[in-house]
Amino acid sequence: MPAYAVGLDLGATSIKAALVARDAGIVESMQVDTGARRGPDHVLGQLELAVRGLVGHVPTEHIQGIGVGAPGSVDLDRTTLIRPPNIHGWDRINVRQALRARLDCDWSIVVDNDANAAALGSAHYGAGRPYDDFIMVTLGTGVGGAIIVGNKVFRGTKGAAGEIGHMTIDYAGPQDRAGVAGAIEAYLGQRFLSSHARRRLDAHPDSVLYAMAGAELALLTPAMLAAAAEAGDTGAVEVLAWAGHKLGCVLGSCINLLDIRVVVVGGGISQAGAFILEPARQAILRYIKPGMHDGVAILRETLGNEAGMLGAAYLVFEHAHSHVSAARGT
Amino acid sequence: MPAYAVGLDLGATSIKAALVARDAGIVESMQVDTGARRGPDHVLGQLELAVRGLVGHVPTEHIQGIGVGAPGSVDLDRTTLIRPPNIHGWDRINVRQALRARLDCDWSIVVDNDANAAALGSAHYGAGRPYDDFIMVTLGTGVGGAIIVGNKVFRGTKGAAGEIGHMTIDYAGPQDRAGVAGAIEAYLGQRFLSSHARRRLDAHPDSVLYAMAGAELALLTPAMLAAAAEAGDTGAVEVLAWAGHKLGCVLGSCINLLDIRVVVVGGGISQAGAFILEPARQAILRYIKPGMHDGVAILRETLGNEAGMLGAAYLVFEHAHSHVSAARGT
Repeated sequence: MPAYAVGLDLGATSIKAALVARDAGIVESMQVDTGARRGPDHVLGQLELAVRGLVGHVPTEHIQGIGVGAPGSVDLDRTTLIRPPNIHGWDRINVRQALRARLDCDWSIVVDNDANAAALGSAHYGAGRPYDDFIMVTLGTGVGGAIIVGNKVFRGTKGAAGEIGHMTIDYAGPQDRAGVAGAIEAYLGQRFLSSHARRRLDAHPDSVLYAMAGAELALLTPAMLAAAAEAGDTGAVEVLAWAGHKLGCVLGSCINLLDIRVVVVGGGISQAGAFILEPARQAILRYIKPGMHDGVAILRETLGNEAGMLGAAYLVFEHAHSHVSAARGT
Repeated sequence: MPAYAVGLDLGATSIKAALVARDAGIVESMQVDTGARRGPDHVLGQLELAVRGLVGHVPTEHIQGIGVGAPGSVDLDRTTLIRPPNIHGWDRINVRQALRARLDCDWSIVVDNDANAAALGSAHYGAGRPYDDFIMVTLGTGVGGAIIVGNKVFRGTKGAAGEIGHMTIDYAGPQDRAGVAGAIEAYLGQRFLSSHARRRLDAHPDSVLYAMAGAELALLTPAMLAAAAEAGDTGAVEVLAWAGHKLGCVLGSCINLLDIRVVVVGGGISQAGAFILEPARQAILRYIKPGMHDGVAILRETLGNEAGMLGAAYLVFEHAHSHVSAARGT
């Protein structure tokens, strides 16, 4: 019987949803507004809407369940989403119960951190597919991370593993949003990187970025940096090399600790490709134990937004498999 | 049938060896010189000597095998020790084959990194016993590390996981022996810490450390620092607090990445107890994501030298168990 699941990527502004075939990937997808300011009930209603919009495409008995990737913490049972940032008034909600009640179903419903979902998507449908073990880092508003070991998410004791964004590369450095000094997010989080780029580019008034973003550079985006670098803009190339160096420093620490030597990079600024990844690779080699150089690789995730939806759906396939395995005693 | 194994802790200057009962711990122990300068054959002979000195204490059929903890790299099969520092002329030697030939036995023989062995010793006989998951850090000549997940060593893709010593806390900081800038070993490795202490204490000529180590402080040891702090010496207390802060910075990064919130600290300077561990604990809390504070603990390993021997022996018990499990299909 063909296996399908709905993957939901719950973001601050939109919910990206896909009907995913286990083997073939995305069959149908849609997007609805999160409406985060309207509170938890509204957001759950939007999740329900997305599921209802997708499940009609295949016979109900082929649907194995629903996976949800979300920002914030998730309990170890992977049913309850705890205080997702940006959703007003959401403390602890058992999303499995809430969606089952709304949809009047008993599908398997699994909730996980959005960084873990994106890494699972990469592991089974994206750049991570050739590797059993890799480190995923997602460069967006913040810096997200996840660890894949044996094609599964390594979750740690309480399920919060992979918080690369808060790892420090300078114990006396600038603070990230959580107040951690020298955390990599305080360099590569979107607001921090844009602000660094603005300062850096003030020395380059001839930069093509001025033409793109205006003299204030207030709207400087990762895509603009990537495009300007591609167009040969020295300032943009320097900013991306600076960012790549910082990224390589923290990834070096990750590789030293985990001995997982493959890194997959996703998120907006990863569009800059080699302009950021090659400086990162060079820094990694300088920040790891010399005996660990063999096999080091840093790759760009090209699935983009789809990684989160695919990985959320895969949470269901993986969950079903682990239950079957448990029943078989393997 | 009672289960025994010989645990060998192969150090640069001495081999510490114990006959270990699986449930009761060390039954007999002995120590022989490594004679590292006399080359691999001599060292293998010393290992043989230690085994022969111990196995006579119980009937041969009760001996399950020999475990070896050693500095340097070990292959994924855990049979071959690769370029251990300080042993002249040792490139790659299959220690299992070499010891089986010398002892004319077919015992199970397992080789692992000494930091991994110490962590296993802690997990099954020491401070780590109450915890399924913990991070072990050993502060000695260098800074060693290991990760215990589900009471087993997490080894990473190629078996080298746990290289905490090379993780950076300042991308522009001082270099460790391997050339990594800001690596924690460049602060807490014995030579680096002594040198920092010397500089720091030059401002405290009234320090009791002068009386202990002489005006040059050339022989300043971790034990002296601990004793001086215990005696109320301000300079020593400050140096240990400085060291604890640095330790907490790198452990914060480890906890962010792994979500393993218990840390066991071994090695010479851990004798300083709360003088180093309390500043480390405070720094950890400042360098981890605020949502991860719950359950953070940092403990001192009190097994001392015994951790390495016990853990080396446990490699054998664990190996035997995993073989039995595989045969049973579980």
